Amino acid sequence: MNVFETEYRFSTDGDGTIVDITAPVNEVVRESGITTGQLTVSVPGSTGALTTIEYEPGLLRDLPELFERLIPSGTTYGHDETWGDGNGFSHLRSALVGPSCTLPVSKGEAVLGTWQQIVFLEFDNRSRNRRIHINIIGE
Amino acid sequence: MNVFETEYRFSTDGDGTIVDITAPVNEVVRESGITTGQLTVSVPGSTGALTTIEYEPGLLRDLPELFERLIPSGTTYGHDETWGDGNGFSHLRSALVGPSCTLPVSKGEAVLGTWQQIVFLEFDNRSRNRRIHINIIGE
Amino acid sequence: MNVFETEYRFSTDGDGTIVDITAPVNEVVRESGITTGQLTVSVPGSTGALTTIEYEPGLLRDLPELFERLIPSGTTYGHDETWGDGNGFSHLRSALVGPSCTLPVSKGEAVLGTWQQIVFLEFDNRSRNRRIHINIIGE
Repeated sequence: MNVFETEYRFSTDGDGTIVDITAPVNEVVRESGITTGQLTVSVPGSTGALTTIEYEPGLLRDLPELFERLIPSGTTYGHDETWGDGNGFSHLRSALVGPSCTLPVSKGEAVLGTWQQIVFLEFDNRSRNRRIHINIIGE
Repeated sequence: MNVFETEYRFSTDGDGTIVDITAPVNEVVRESGITTGQLTVSVPGSTGALTTIEYEPGLLRDLPELFERLIPSGTTYGHDETWGDGNGFSHLRSALVGPSCTLPVSKGEAVLGTWQQIVFLEFDNRSRNRRIHINIIGE
Repeated sequence: MNVFETEYRFSTDGDGTIVDITAPVNEVVRESGITTGQLTVSVPGSTGALTTIEYEPGLLRDLPELFERLIPSGTTYGHDETWGDGNGFSHLRSALVGPSCTLPVSKGEAVLGTWQQIVFLEFDNRSRNRRIHINIIGE
Protein backbone atom coordinates (compact mmCIF):
# COMPACT_ATOMS: atom_id res chain seq x y z
CA MET A 1 0.00 0.00 0.00
CA ASN A 2 1.35 3.40 -1.01
CA VAL A 3 0.42 7.07 -0.95
CA PHE A 4 1.51 9.58 -3.59
CA GLU A 5 0.93 13.34 -3.77
CA THR A 6 1.70 16.14 -6.17
CA GLU A 7 0.37 19.43 -7.51
CA TYR A 8 -0.77 20.42 -10.97
CA ARG A 9 -0.61 24.10 -11.89
CA PHE A 10 -2.35 26.16 -14.57
CA SER A 11 -3.90 29.59 -15.03
CA THR A 12 -7.51 30.49 -15.84
CA ASP A 13 -9.36 33.41 -17.42
CA GLY A 14 -11.72 33.77 -14.46
CA ASP A 15 -15.41 32.88 -14.04
CA GLY A 16 -16.69 30.40 -16.59
CA THR A 17 -13.34 28.76 -17.33
CA ILE A 18 -13.65 24.97 -17.25
CA VAL A 19 -10.32 23.09 -17.31
CA ASP A 20 -10.15 19.42 -18.31
CA ILE A 21 -7.55 17.92 -15.97
CA THR A 22 -8.18 14.25 -16.80
CA ALA A 23 -4.97 13.68 -18.78
CA PRO A 24 -2.59 15.26 -16.22
CA VAL A 25 -4.39 13.47 -13.37
CA ASN A 26 -4.05 10.10 -15.10
CA GLU A 27 -0.40 10.89 -15.83
CA VAL A 28 0.07 11.34 -12.05
CA VAL A 29 -1.70 8.02 -11.40
CA ARG A 30 0.74 6.29 -13.77
CA GLU A 31 3.68 8.05 -12.11
CA SER A 32 2.46 6.83 -8.70
CA GLY A 33 2.58 3.20 -9.76
CA ILE A 34 -0.74 2.67 -7.95
CA THR A 35 -3.15 0.50 -9.93
CA THR A 36 -6.03 0.04 -7.43
CA GLY A 37 -7.05 2.67 -4.90
CA GLN A 38 -8.64 6.06 -4.39
CA LEU A 39 -7.77 9.42 -5.93
CA THR A 40 -8.67 12.85 -4.51
CA VAL A 41 -8.17 16.05 -6.49
CA SER A 42 -8.84 19.30 -4.63
CA VAL A 43 -8.47 23.04 -4.98
CA PRO A 44 -6.91 24.90 -2.08
CA GLY A 45 -9.06 28.02 -2.27
CA SER A 46 -12.73 28.89 -1.93
CA THR A 47 -13.67 30.24 -5.38
CA GLY A 48 -13.19 27.12 -7.52
CA ALA A 49 -14.60 23.60 -7.55
CA LEU A 50 -13.98 20.08 -8.86
CA THR A 51 -16.48 17.76 -10.53
CA THR A 52 -16.84 15.67 -13.68
CA ILE A 53 -18.66 16.47 -16.92
CA GLU A 54 -18.52 15.57 -20.60
CA TYR A 55 -16.06 18.16 -21.84
CA GLU A 56 -17.72 19.32 -25.08
CA PRO A 57 -18.52 22.83 -26.43
CA GLY A 58 -22.25 22.73 -25.65
CA LEU A 59 -21.86 21.93 -21.97
CA LEU A 60 -18.96 24.39 -21.68
CA ARG A 61 -21.59 27.05 -22.40
CA ASP A 62 -24.43 25.40 -20.48
CA LEU A 63 -22.69 24.94 -17.15
CA PRO A 64 -21.63 28.60 -16.67
CA GLU A 65 -25.14 29.66 -17.74
CA LEU A 66 -26.62 27.34 -15.12
CA PHE A 67 -24.50 28.84 -12.33
CA GLU A 68 -25.30 32.35 -13.54
CA ARG A 69 -29.00 31.50 -13.25
CA LEU A 70 -28.83 29.72 -9.87
CA ILE A 71 -26.33 32.11 -8.22
CA PRO A 72 -26.15 35.35 -10.26
CA SER A 73 -22.91 37.31 -10.41
CA GLY A 74 -24.71 40.65 -10.73
CA THR A 75 -26.16 40.57 -7.19
CA THR A 76 -24.47 42.14 -4.17
CA TYR A 77 -23.93 39.53 -1.47
CA GLY A 78 -23.03 39.98 2.19
CA HIS A 79 -19.54 38.78 1.34
CA ASP A 80 -19.05 41.71 -1.01
CA GLU A 81 -19.92 44.14 1.78
CA THR A 82 -17.26 42.47 3.96
CA TRP A 83 -14.41 42.52 1.49
CA GLY A 84 -15.44 44.65 -1.47
CA ASP A 85 -13.96 42.22 -3.98
CA GLY A 86 -17.29 41.48 -5.65
CA ASN A 87 -16.90 37.72 -5.77
CA GLY A 88 -19.54 36.60 -3.27
CA PHE A 89 -21.18 34.59 -6.05
CA SER A 90 -17.88 32.72 -6.60
CA HIS A 91 -17.72 31.57 -2.98
CA LEU A 92 -21.35 30.41 -2.97
CA ARG A 93 -20.96 28.40 -6.18
CA SER A 94 -17.80 26.78 -4.84
CA ALA A 95 -19.46 25.78 -1.54
CA LEU A 96 -22.38 24.25 -3.45
CA VAL A 97 -20.31 22.11 -5.85
CA GLY A 98 -17.50 21.33 -3.42
CA PRO A 99 -13.71 21.74 -3.35
CA SER A 100 -12.75 18.18 -4.25
CA CYS A 101 -13.55 15.12 -6.34
CA THR A 102 -12.74 11.59 -5.16
CA LEU A 103 -12.74 8.70 -7.62
CA PRO A 104 -11.69 5.06 -7.54
CA VAL A 105 -8.48 4.11 -9.32
CA SER A 106 -8.64 0.81 -11.18
CA LYS A 107 -6.25 -0.76 -13.71
CA GLY A 108 -3.92 2.18 -13.24
CA GLU A 109 -6.31 5.01 -14.04
CA ALA A 110 -9.21 7.03 -12.67
CA VAL A 111 -12.53 5.19 -13.09
CA LEU A 112 -14.49 7.32 -15.57
CA GLY A 113 -17.00 6.81 -18.35
CA THR A 114 -15.94 7.20 -21.98
CA TRP A 115 -17.47 10.69 -22.18
CA GLN A 116 -16.65 11.84 -18.67
CA GLN A 117 -13.80 14.17 -17.73
CA ILE A 118 -12.48 15.50 -14.41
CA VAL A 119 -12.83 19.28 -14.55
CA PHE A 120 -11.83 22.29 -12.52
CA LEU A 121 -14.50 25.00 -12.45
CA GLU A 122 -13.17 28.54 -12.09
CA PHE A 123 -15.75 30.78 -10.41
CA ASP A 124 -13.57 33.73 -9.38
CA ASN A 125 -14.18 37.09 -11.06
CA ARG A 126 -10.59 37.46 -12.26
CA SER A 127 -7.89 35.34 -13.86
CA ARG A 128 -6.17 33.08 -11.37
CA ASN A 129 -3.07 30.93 -11.11
CA ARG A 130 -4.37 27.65 -9.73
CA ARG A 131 -2.67 24.68 -8.18
CA ILE A 132 -4.67 21.47 -7.87
CA HIS A 133 -3.61 19.03 -5.19
CA ILE A 134 -3.65 15.35 -6.21
CA ASN A 135 -3.44 12.50 -3.70
CA ILE A 136 -3.57 8.78 -4.53
CA ILE A 137 -3.69 5.90 -2.05
CA GLY A 138 -3.64 2.25 -3.01
CA GLU A 139 -1.44 -0.55 -4.19
CA MET B 1 -3.96 -2.22 5.21
CA ASN B 2 -5.94 -3.49 2.23
CA VAL B 3 -7.75 -2.27 -0.85
CA PHE B 4 -10.79 -3.97 -2.36
CA GLU B 5 -12.74 -3.15 -5.51
CA THR B 6 -15.79 -4.46 -7.28
CA GLU B 7 -18.75 -3.38 -9.40
CA TYR B 8 -22.47 -3.46 -8.70
CA ARG B 9 -24.82 -3.58 -11.69
CA PHE B 10 -28.50 -2.74 -12.10
CA SER B 11 -30.83 -1.13 -14.61
CA THR B 12 -32.94 2.02 -14.25
CA ASP B 13 -36.10 3.45 -15.83
CA GLY B 14 -34.41 6.73 -16.71
CA ASP B 15 -34.69 10.23 -15.21
CA GLY B 16 -36.15 10.28 -11.71
CA THR B 17 -35.13 6.74 -10.76
CA ILE B 18 -33.48 6.69 -7.33
CA VAL B 19 -31.77 3.41 -6.42
CA ASP B 20 -30.97 2.54 -2.79
CA ILE B 21 -27.57 0.81 -2.97
CA THR B 22 -26.87 0.74 0.79
CA ALA B 23 -27.38 -3.00 1.28
CA PRO B 24 -25.22 -4.14 -1.66
CA VAL B 25 -22.52 -1.62 -0.72
CA ASN B 26 -22.42 -2.88 2.88
CA GLU B 27 -22.34 -6.45 1.57
CA VAL B 28 -19.20 -5.49 -0.37
CA VAL B 29 -17.69 -3.93 2.76
CA ARG B 30 -18.26 -7.22 4.62
CA GLU B 31 -16.77 -9.18 1.74
CA SER B 32 -13.67 -6.95 1.81
CA GLY B 33 -12.96 -7.80 5.43
CA ILE B 34 -12.13 -4.11 6.02
CA THR B 35 -13.57 -2.78 9.29
CA THR B 36 -12.05 0.74 9.42
CA GLY B 37 -11.34 2.86 6.36
CA GLN B 38 -12.83 4.82 3.50
CA LEU B 39 -15.36 3.79 0.88
CA THR B 40 -15.88 5.46 -2.50
CA VAL B 41 -18.83 4.60 -4.74
CA SER B 42 -18.85 6.20 -8.18
CA VAL B 43 -20.69 6.08 -11.47
CA PRO B 44 -18.57 5.85 -14.62
CA GLY B 45 -20.72 8.08 -16.84
CA SER B 46 -21.86 11.69 -16.87
CA THR B 47 -25.65 11.45 -16.54
CA GLY B 48 -25.98 9.95 -13.05
CA ALA B 49 -24.87 10.91 -9.55
CA LEU B 50 -24.27 9.53 -6.06
CA THR B 51 -25.39 11.04 -2.76
CA THR B 52 -27.28 10.05 0.39
CA ILE B 53 -30.92 10.65 1.34
CA GLU B 54 -33.63 9.12 3.51
CA TYR B 55 -35.13 6.63 1.07
CA GLU B 56 -38.86 7.13 1.66
CA PRO B 57 -41.75 7.73 -0.76
CA GLY B 58 -42.13 11.46 -0.08
CA LEU B 59 -38.52 12.32 -0.85
CA LEU B 60 -38.52 9.97 -3.86
CA ARG B 61 -41.06 12.41 -5.34
CA ASP B 62 -39.49 15.59 -3.91
CA LEU B 63 -35.94 15.11 -5.19
CA PRO B 64 -36.84 14.65 -8.89
CA GLU B 65 -39.22 17.63 -8.61
CA LEU B 66 -36.38 19.71 -7.17
CA PHE B 67 -34.07 18.89 -10.07
CA GLU B 68 -36.85 19.54 -12.56
CA ARG B 69 -37.29 22.99 -11.03
CA LEU B 70 -33.57 23.87 -10.77
CA ILE B 71 -32.49 22.37 -14.13
CA PRO B 72 -35.60 21.78 -16.29
CA SER B 73 -35.67 18.90 -18.75
CA GLY B 74 -37.91 20.79 -21.20
CA THR B 75 -35.27 23.38 -22.11
CA THR B 76 -32.89 23.03 -25.07
CA TYR B 77 -29.29 23.26 -23.89
CA GLY B 78 -26.11 23.80 -25.89
CA HIS B 79 -25.30 20.13 -25.32
CA ASP B 80 -28.47 19.11 -27.17
CA GLU B 81 -27.39 21.14 -30.20
CA THR B 82 -24.05 19.31 -30.17
CA TRP B 83 -25.37 15.77 -29.94
CA GLY B 84 -29.12 15.89 -30.48
CA ASP B 85 -29.78 13.39 -27.72
CA GLY B 86 -31.83 15.80 -25.63
CA ASN B 87 -30.17 15.04 -22.31
CA GLY B 88 -28.31 18.27 -21.63
CA PHE B 89 -30.26 18.60 -18.39
CA SER B 90 -28.98 15.16 -17.29
CA HIS B 91 -25.34 16.20 -17.68
CA LEU B 92 -25.85 19.46 -15.79
CA ARG B 93 -27.61 17.76 -12.86
CA SER B 94 -24.85 15.15 -12.68
CA ALA B 95 -22.08 17.78 -12.65
CA LEU B 96 -23.87 19.67 -9.87
CA VAL B 97 -24.40 16.68 -7.53
CA GLY B 98 -21.18 14.88 -8.40
CA PRO B 99 -20.23 11.41 -9.69
CA SER B 100 -19.16 9.85 -6.40
CA CYS B 101 -19.84 9.55 -2.68
CA THR B 102 -17.06 8.87 -0.17
CA LEU B 103 -17.89 7.73 3.35
CA PRO B 104 -15.94 6.44 6.32
CA VAL B 105 -16.14 2.72 7.08
CA SER B 106 -16.34 1.89 10.79
CA LYS B 107 -17.12 -1.38 12.59
CA GLY B 108 -17.34 -3.09 9.22
CA GLU B 109 -19.95 -0.89 7.57
CA ALA B 110 -20.47 2.49 5.92
CA VAL B 111 -20.97 5.25 8.51
CA LEU B 112 -24.58 6.39 8.02
CA GLY B 113 -27.44 7.68 10.13
CA THR B 114 -30.40 5.44 10.89
CA TRP B 115 -32.54 7.13 8.22
CA GLN B 116 -29.80 7.71 5.66
CA GLN B 117 -29.21 5.63 2.55
CA ILE B 118 -26.59 5.71 -0.22
CA VAL B 119 -28.45 6.35 -3.46
CA PHE B 120 -27.74 6.43 -7.16
CA LEU B 121 -29.64 9.20 -8.97
CA GLU B 122 -30.49 8.43 -12.58
CA PHE B 123 -30.78 11.64 -14.60
CA ASP B 124 -30.57 10.27 -18.15
CA ASN B 125 -33.63 10.56 -20.38
CA ARG B 126 -33.80 6.83 -21.12
CA SER B 127 -33.48 3.53 -19.26
CA ARG B 128 -29.88 2.61 -18.60
CA ASN B 129 -27.83 -0.37 -17.52
CA ARG B 130 -25.59 1.01 -14.79
CA ARG B 131 -22.48 -0.30 -13.12
CA ILE B 132 -21.39 1.37 -9.90
CA HIS B 133 -17.74 1.10 -8.98
CA ILE B 134 -17.02 0.44 -5.29
CA ASN B 135 -13.57 0.87 -3.75
CA ILE B 136 -12.70 0.33 -0.08
CA ILE B 137 -9.35 1.05 1.59
CA GLY B 138 -8.56 0.30 5.21
CA GLU B 139 -7.73 -2.43 7.64
CA MET C 1 0.31 3.12 6.17
CA ASN C 2 -2.22 3.75 8.91
CA VAL C 3 -5.91 4.46 9.42
CA PHE C 4 -7.31 6.58 12.23
CA GLU C 5 -10.91 7.35 13.14
CA THR C 6 -12.72 9.43 15.71
CA GLU C 7 -15.85 11.53 16.26
CA TYR C 8 -16.27 15.22 16.94
CA ARG C 9 -19.42 16.34 18.76
CA PHE C 10 -21.19 19.69 19.03
CA SER C 11 -24.70 21.11 19.10
CA THR C 12 -26.36 23.50 16.65
CA ASP C 13 -29.23 26.00 16.71
CA GLY C 14 -30.95 24.43 13.69
CA ASP C 15 -31.25 25.57 10.08
CA GLY C 16 -28.71 28.19 9.06
CA THR C 17 -26.06 27.22 11.61
CA ILE C 18 -22.64 26.91 9.97
CA VAL C 19 -19.94 25.34 12.15
CA ASP C 20 -16.25 25.81 11.35
CA ILE C 21 -14.67 22.43 12.17
CA THR C 22 -11.24 23.11 10.63
CA ALA C 23 -9.34 23.41 13.91
CA PRO C 24 -10.73 20.24 15.54
CA VAL C 25 -10.26 18.30 12.29
CA ASN C 26 -6.62 19.38 12.02
CA GLU C 27 -6.14 18.50 15.69
CA VAL C 28 -7.32 14.97 14.84
CA VAL C 29 -4.90 14.85 11.90
CA ARG C 30 -2.05 15.72 14.25
CA GLU C 31 -3.22 13.12 16.76
CA SER C 32 -3.26 10.48 13.99
CA GLY C 33 0.40 11.03 13.20
CA ILE C 34 -0.47 10.83 9.49
CA THR C 35 1.32 13.45 7.41
CA THR C 36 0.33 12.43 3.85
CA GLY C 37 -2.99 10.87 2.95
CA GLN C 38 -6.72 11.42 2.63
CA LEU C 39 -9.23 12.73 5.15
CA THR C 40 -13.00 12.17 5.06
CA VAL C 41 -15.37 14.03 7.37
CA SER C 42 -19.01 12.97 7.26
CA VAL C 43 -22.30 13.48 9.05
CA PRO C 44 -24.28 10.38 9.94
CA GLY C 45 -27.75 11.80 9.30
CA SER C 46 -29.66 13.18 6.36
CA THR C 47 -30.36 16.81 7.34
CA GLY C 48 -26.82 18.22 7.44
CA ALA C 49 -23.94 18.52 4.99
CA LEU C 50 -20.19 19.08 4.76
CA THR C 51 -18.35 21.45 2.42
CA THR C 52 -15.76 24.24 2.55
CA ILE C 53 -16.24 28.00 2.52
CA GLU C 54 -14.50 31.16 3.70
CA TYR C 55 -15.92 31.43 7.22
CA GLU C 56 -16.69 35.16 7.43
CA PRO C 57 -19.85 37.05 8.52
CA GLY C 58 -21.00 38.00 5.02
CA LEU C 59 -21.02 34.45 3.67
CA LEU C 60 -22.56 33.15 6.91
CA ARG C 61 -25.61 35.19 5.89
CA ASP C 62 -25.33 34.56 2.14
CA LEU C 63 -25.21 30.77 2.21
CA PRO C 64 -28.42 30.24 4.25
CA GLU C 65 -30.15 32.83 2.03
CA LEU C 66 -29.03 30.91 -1.05
CA PHE C 67 -30.49 27.63 0.24
CA GLU C 68 -33.70 29.40 1.27
CA ARG C 69 -34.02 30.67 -2.30
CA LEU C 70 -33.12 27.40 -4.07
CA ILE C 71 -35.02 25.06 -1.71
CA PRO C 72 -37.50 27.12 0.36
CA SER C 73 -38.37 26.02 3.89
CA GLY C 74 -41.91 27.41 3.67
CA THR C 75 -43.08 24.88 1.06
CA THR C 76 -44.77 21.59 1.93
CA TYR C 77 -42.85 18.69 0.43
CA GLY C 78 -43.90 15.07 -0.04
CA HIS C 79 -41.57 14.18 2.84
CA ASP C 80 -43.60 16.35 5.19
CA GLU C 81 -46.76 14.47 4.27
CA THR C 82 -44.99 11.19 5.10
CA TRP C 83 -43.62 12.17 8.50
CA GLY C 84 -45.20 15.51 9.48
CA ASP C 85 -41.92 16.84 10.84
CA GLY C 86 -41.78 19.72 8.36
CA ASN C 87 -38.14 19.29 7.40
CA GLY C 88 -38.45 18.10 3.81
CA PHE C 89 -36.38 21.12 2.74
CA SER C 90 -33.57 19.98 5.09
CA HIS C 91 -33.32 16.56 3.45
CA LEU C 92 -33.28 18.02 -0.05
CA ARG C 93 -30.54 20.54 0.76
CA SER C 94 -28.46 17.79 2.37
CA ALA C 95 -28.79 15.48 -0.64
CA LEU C 96 -27.75 18.31 -2.97
CA VAL C 97 -24.60 19.36 -1.06
CA GLY C 98 -23.63 15.88 0.13
CA PRO C 99 -22.96 14.20 3.48
CA SER C 100 -19.17 14.24 3.38
CA CYS C 101 -16.06 16.17 2.41
CA THR C 102 -12.83 14.42 1.40
CA LEU C 103 -9.56 16.35 1.28
CA PRO C 104 -5.90 15.48 0.84
CA VAL C 105 -3.69 15.58 3.92
CA SER C 106 -0.22 17.01 3.31
CA LYS C 107 2.52 18.07 5.73
CA GLY C 108 0.34 16.91 8.60
CA GLU C 109 -2.78 18.94 7.88
CA ALA C 110 -5.82 19.17 5.60
CA VAL C 111 -4.94 20.81 2.27
CA LEU C 112 -6.88 24.11 2.30
CA GLY C 113 -6.46 27.64 1.02
CA THR C 114 -5.67 30.46 3.43
CA TRP C 115 -9.29 31.64 3.45
CA GLN C 116 -10.96 28.24 3.25
CA GLN C 117 -12.53 26.38 6.16
CA ILE C 118 -14.19 22.96 6.51
CA VAL C 119 -17.77 23.60 7.60
CA PHE C 120 -20.76 21.61 8.77
CA LEU C 121 -24.05 22.99 7.43
CA GLU C 122 -27.05 22.43 9.69
CA PHE C 123 -30.26 22.28 7.65
CA ASP C 124 -32.63 20.68 10.19
CA ASN C 125 -35.53 22.78 11.48
CA ARG C 126 -34.55 22.32 15.14
CA SER C 127 -31.45 22.37 17.30
CA ARG C 128 -29.45 19.15 17.02
CA ASN C 129 -26.65 17.35 18.80
CA ARG C 130 -24.29 16.40 16.00
CA ARG C 131 -21.43 13.97 15.79
CA ILE C 132 -19.09 14.25 12.83
CA HIS C 133 -17.15 11.17 11.85
CA ILE C 134 -13.51 11.74 10.88
CA ASN C 135 -11.39 9.14 9.09
CA ILE C 136 -7.77 9.58 7.96
CA ILE C 137 -5.72 7.15 5.89
CA GLY C 138 -2.07 7.63 5.00
CA GLU C 139 1.42 7.47 6.33
